[in-house]
Amino acid sequence: MNRIPFDEVKKTLAGALEKLGFAPERAETCAQLFAETTRDGVYTHGVNRFMRFVETIRNGRVNPAAEPEVVNRYGALERWDGHRGPGNLAALKAMERAIALGREHGVGCVALGNTNHWMRGGTYGWQAAEAGMIGICWTNTMPNLPPWGGAERVIGNNPLIFGVPRASGPVVLDMAMSQFSYGALESYRKRGEMLPVDGGFDAAGNLTRDPGAIEESWRPLPMGYWKGSGLAVVLDMVAAMMTLGQATWQISSVAVHETAISQMFLALNPAAVGSPQEAERIADAVVDSLHKCKPAKAGSRVRYPGEETLRLREENTRLGLPVEAEVWAEILAI
Amino acid sequence: MNRIPFDEVKKTLAGALEKLGFAPERAETCAQLFAETTRDGVYTHGVNRFMRFVETIRNGRVNPAAEPEVVNRYGALERWDGHRGPGNLAALKAMERAIALGREHGVGCVALGNTNHWMRGGTYGWQAAEAGMIGICWTNTMPNLPPWGGAERVIGNNPLIFGVPRASGPVVLDMAMSQFSYGALESYRKRGEMLPVDGGFDAAGNLTRDPGAIEESWRPLPMGYWKGSGLAVVLDMVAAMMTLGQATWQISSVAVHETAISQMFLALNPAAVGSPQEAERIADAVVDSLHKCKPAKAGSRVRYPGEETLRLREENTRLGLPVEAEVWAEILAI
Repeated sequence: MNRIPFDEVKKTLAGALEKLGFAPERAETCAQLFAETTRDGVYTHGVNRFMRFVETIRNGRVNPAAEPEVVNRYGALERWDGHRGPGNLAALKAMERAIALGREHGVGCVALGNTNHWMRGGTYGWQAAEAGMIGICWTNTMPNLPPWGGAERVIGNNPLIFGVPRASGPVVLDMAMSQFSYGALESYRKRGEMLPVDGGFDAAGNLTRDPGAIEESWRPLPMGYWKGSGLAVVLDMVAAMMTLGQATWQISSVAVHETAISQMFLALNPAAVGSPQEAERIADAVVDSLHKCKPAKAGSRVRYPGEETLRLREENTRLGLPVEAEVWAEILAI
Repeated sequence: MNRIPFDEVKKTLAGALEKLGFAPERAETCAQLFAETTRDGVYTHGVNRFMRFVETIRNGRVNPAAEPEVVNRYGALERWDGHRGPGNLAALKAMERAIALGREHGVGCVALGNTNHWMRGGTYGWQAAEAGMIGICWTNTMPNLPPWGGAERVIGNNPLIFGVPRASGPVVLDMAMSQFSYGALESYRKRGEMLPVDGGFDAAGNLTRDPGAIEESWRPLPMGYWKGSGLAVVLDMVAAMMTLGQATWQISSVAVHETAISQMFLALNPAAVGSPQEAERIADAVVDSLHKCKPAKAGSRVRYPGEETLRLREENTRLGLPVEAEVWAEILAI
């Protein structure tokens, strides 16, 4: 594992993206989003994922020159076409526009269709929260999860994000509808560990904590069993209906071929009903109520969603971003 | 178990509500919502729950004469004060207003504070869907669930509802953030059955399927463990911030004293980006993709959220609403 300064990571990724056809400014923003994701401790979706992103540029699924474009305007709601450009740049733009609509109308919504994987969903929750807005967004994905009662993968793990502004640290929930991602299953298996709770079915159809057995059956659990399954279905349905875009069943189930997905971005303006100070007091008090909760295990404490981010951000900024040596070598070779 | 015609149930409940201080028209609407909930098969939140609702009127937590009132208007967003009136009437009004705002602005939002339990959350999802709109709403509740990593109940089970319009049957997801409600735990225990999956912790802190052990520990699981816990936290936070109302930690944890809760109602207008026909084709195709999924058990099939409702509605309309005899006797005695 290398520790590389943030600015060096960003500059290196931006240079690679320029070689792949990105305009300089877009290369810089895209590189920054990857570097920030690693800086914030979401290692699965940051620099370590960069080569997979590069592969989707090389195979034509992501068009580096394509910019998102508004198609319909209807008051506080807009429908955008991502033109299959880089998913993180399009999502950033969509949340930026939802925030502007929310400032103007109290609530704003951008439905972004025909786009690509947005990488870390939490990015757009942080974006809204840092602008003083409540952000809610979700994406559909390729079919990667069996619905409750089903034996094959026909629904997506459709991450859902909430970002809530707070001066002492935004509260950001970033969660997929699967209980464990395939990446998490792989990590547990490689460490020789069992999952802490049931994570899927084995080949015989029994619930299991064995990560390898779940990888073999391709039957990970939706979070909350029937509940996460139902939520994944409605998130997909709403995103496809509002974008007039693709639903999960229409999306390729090969990861590097996944394209033309559908996303929703909502922004609520707390200042429209009171003052930012009031909103913050309310959010702080909820955080306090969690911190005061008696912990299940002595010495631990209940945390709010995203609580570790600022600590990891500080640590990784100070020590340099942790990047797998092999990944870094591949990036340098672009 | 009695089977009583819908109209008789509605008329009886309306008469009881008038005796308790409801104006005739409001008594009729409130009675209708209770009767419809039982008709649609949500027996826990319909007529069987009526006496608990009556108790909150008698103890002063619910003011039958109080009407919800708009406090702030800001474009597509409004903040309302429920004045601690009947929660189902206030929620119906709030979703009605969100729908009107959504028709006008593409997306509409009503934040309803200082209100009371809305009974069946799905009611407002159906309301939006039947108006051709996508409805999203949630409520906070009294503290009734330990957060992930916590040993005491400091978060709410905060139901979240999505309603999606579809001529052949709206898709309505109505789910609380607990994996099993206390009512469900009680039902399993009384039938002498174990839960189908882990539902909470026993007194020793181990995950268990034993409903009685969970009732004793007061530690049911959030759905999806850390995921449902995090979602409950942000739903509560957003509702309190946008209503300037109470968060879960401020609400009494005695069920019949629970009052002054906070709710959010969002409505999205699919016709703003296309046509109702297009939206419906998209929703239908998602439903089809679920129905075509290979089932985990031969002979079963994957269902969409709310799929059983229309069948139960038809059956209960035809045979009469199933109401516990004891409950019915109590209602007749009001």
